[in-house]
Amino acid sequence: MAITIAALKEAADEHRVSLVPSVVKRLVKQGCQVLVEKDAGAAANFADQQYVDAGAKVVDRQQAIDQANLVTVVNRPDDETVAKLKSGQALLGLLSLSVDHDVAKQLANRQVTTLSFELLPRTVSRAQSMDALSSQSSVAGYKAALVAADHFMRYFPMMITAAGTAKPAKVLVLGTGVAGLQAIGTAKRLGAIVSGYDVRPASRGEVESLGAKFLTSSVSAAGKGGYARQLTKEEQQKQQDELAGFIADSDIVITTARVPGKKPPMLVTEKSVQAAKPGSIFIDIAASELGGNVAGSKPGAVVETDNGAEIVGADNLPSELATSASEMYSKNVQAVIKALLDKEGNIAIDTNDDVMSELVATYQGQVISGRLRAQMGLP
Amino acid sequence: MAITIAALKEAADEHRVSLVPSVVKRLVKQGCQVLVEKDAGAAANFADQQYVDAGAKVVDRQQAIDQANLVTVVNRPDDETVAKLKSGQALLGLLSLSVDHDVAKQLANRQVTTLSFELLPRTVSRAQSMDALSSQSSVAGYKAALVAADHFMRYFPMMITAAGTAKPAKVLVLGTGVAGLQAIGTAKRLGAIVSGYDVRPASRGEVESLGAKFLTSSVSAAGKGGYARQLTKEEQQKQQDELAGFIADSDIVITTARVPGKKPPMLVTEKSVQAAKPGSIFIDIAASELGGNVAGSKPGAVVETDNGAEIVGADNLPSELATSASEMYSKNVQAVIKALLDKEGNIAIDTNDDVMSELVATYQGQVISGRLRAQMGLP
Repeated sequence: MAITIAALKEAADEHRVSLVPSVVKRLVKQGCQVLVEKDAGAAANFADQQYVDAGAKVVDRQQAIDQANLVTVVNRPDDETVAKLKSGQALLGLLSLSVDHDVAKQLANRQVTTLSFELLPRTVSRAQSMDALSSQSSVAGYKAALVAADHFMRYFPMMITAAGTAKPAKVLVLGTGVAGLQAIGTAKRLGAIVSGYDVRPASRGEVESLGAKFLTSSVSAAGKGGYARQLTKEEQQKQQDELAGFIADSDIVITTARVPGKKPPMLVTEKSVQAAKPGSIFIDIAASELGGNVAGSKPGAVVETDNGAEIVGADNLPSELATSASEMYSKNVQAVIKALLDKEGNIAIDTNDDVMSELVATYQGQVISGRLRAQMGLP
Repeated sequence: MAITIAALKEAADEHRVSLVPSVVKRLVKQGCQVLVEKDAGAAANFADQQYVDAGAKVVDRQQAIDQANLVTVVNRPDDETVAKLKSGQALLGLLSLSVDHDVAKQLANRQVTTLSFELLPRTVSRAQSMDALSSQSSVAGYKAALVAADHFMRYFPMMITAAGTAKPAKVLVLGTGVAGLQAIGTAKRLGAIVSGYDVRPASRGEVESLGAKFLTSSVSAAGKGGYARQLTKEEQQKQQDELAGFIADSDIVITTARVPGKKPPMLVTEKSVQAAKPGSIFIDIAASELGGNVAGSKPGAVVETDNGAEIVGADNLPSELATSASEMYSKNVQAVIKALLDKEGNIAIDTNDDVMSELVATYQGQVISGRLRAQMGLP
């Protein structure tokens, strides 16, 4: 029996969609039945008719939830929707279970199988095609550089004209993971003088290969799983003092130090913000309700400081590049589905598999993700 | 006796300023006295203190108007200010006298010497450093590509990632003057596939040197002074039909066909707009109260069409890159001032000079610009 997959429409402030027509077409070809909630792709410029043409059925939300074996989303759906999911159904998305343990418990209790992209092991190469955090971070980094260029009141590139020469903009990117590298690459494309700062010295090669200058701290913060480790207060202070010098020398600072489910490290202090030249731009990709990398940043808002700088709380940049972001995300979803199905096309979860053992958060009534169990204080 | 130059604060919707601190410094060094209206540079990120440090005096508007021999502006000041200018004073800026002949008459009658950048001869190489239309068009072209990239919900560059490959965006730039070439260059920098369309076949070399594809019409429209000539109705229809095909093949269309003081030619018809794919972006640099290059464009507004396209009425892009735009403009102002002053540092206008004979609109009670006189029906 073929499984039924349903893509839900996201909340109004999210423009992405978890399945795009081209991926729907492939899933249908593989024998899946695909349901798409009405207008699910509209904000990402995918019309219902395109889904129908791809072989999906456009349905209302209730039908989608009732009939699906697997529900796909970008963000965790609202509580009402979560409460409607039934035993045996599976839910796949960026579910942010680390920041809301009650939902994780509830989903386990309801015998819903939950797969959350945040839990994907990032060191297993086989999981790369499923890595939605990476694909969406890449989008965020690209868009961060564009947003910076659009807010900045000067040219990014050097301009040599009959009326004189304009100096290129100085861009500093803090954090050189996927988002940071993409921001560096895009700012370089636009002709800025770009530096990339990371506390992990191993990032030097990647930053320099993009033609940017690599800056680092005398404090090493190499950690597990490709993430930077949490620093002590003293280490943070030293790091900040060193950083303040780099920041003061920049026109634009893009910060990318997100740690999923945790309070982001403060990289640009209030003192640094206040010392910025008028017209300076801070783009804080880590801006969230838990705080951000830049003092005074507000998620979803542009804060103008007294000294004429702007802090852009860029909490959901992928939503602003919704078409490309959805295409990438949808391919990540497709890769997970491919890994989930057995030869008969049914969902078959192997909890001993090195990817599934981490990606699957809840299964058969239990929270089975080791990382999530540890966070929840479960044995 | 040294002359006194006064830079006025622009209207609230204009972020540029006619003199920047670095240029003030040079003027002061040359023996000019410089007055700057309070907060004149604030919106372009130049603080009053920077002007004081450069040797200017920060004054109120009345003082600036009372004491100046030469008043500099970006746009034509309001009627109240025009009415305060006195005999013997000079006014320099983008004064749009072609679209308001009454103001030209009034300024002539009041014996004000008026220099309007729109009238500058663009074929005299000595006038290049004074060419504010060019410097500001260049800013507009750069910013147009950025605004397009920011509105577009997909990547500009091709992206090869673990989650698959994203196709590059297709950008079509209509009109390959200064603005068009800068838009082409910036879109290319960002990694898009770019085409430049112009009815002047001579543009081919410039477009291709930027790595873009050159598209043209079978209708030739080479005109005088570097501008395209006005086309007949039949020619326009043929041009539009050919163009419609190019437009339909593009994700983004940037239109740059402005003719100072005249209604811009309609390049993208309603039919083309309605045939556009969802997510298509039109940036109309020629958007104005007189109309634009794109059917349905509104100056200063973003229009969303029923078929999911966006039309950006980008009527004043230089104001959005105010710091760089002001630096360039200010250097154009400086070049004009240099040409205006005699050895003693007084304003001395040689109406036989090939630049001044065109740049100067009104002098000693007369409209002396030949172009303006022709437009006004004066002999």
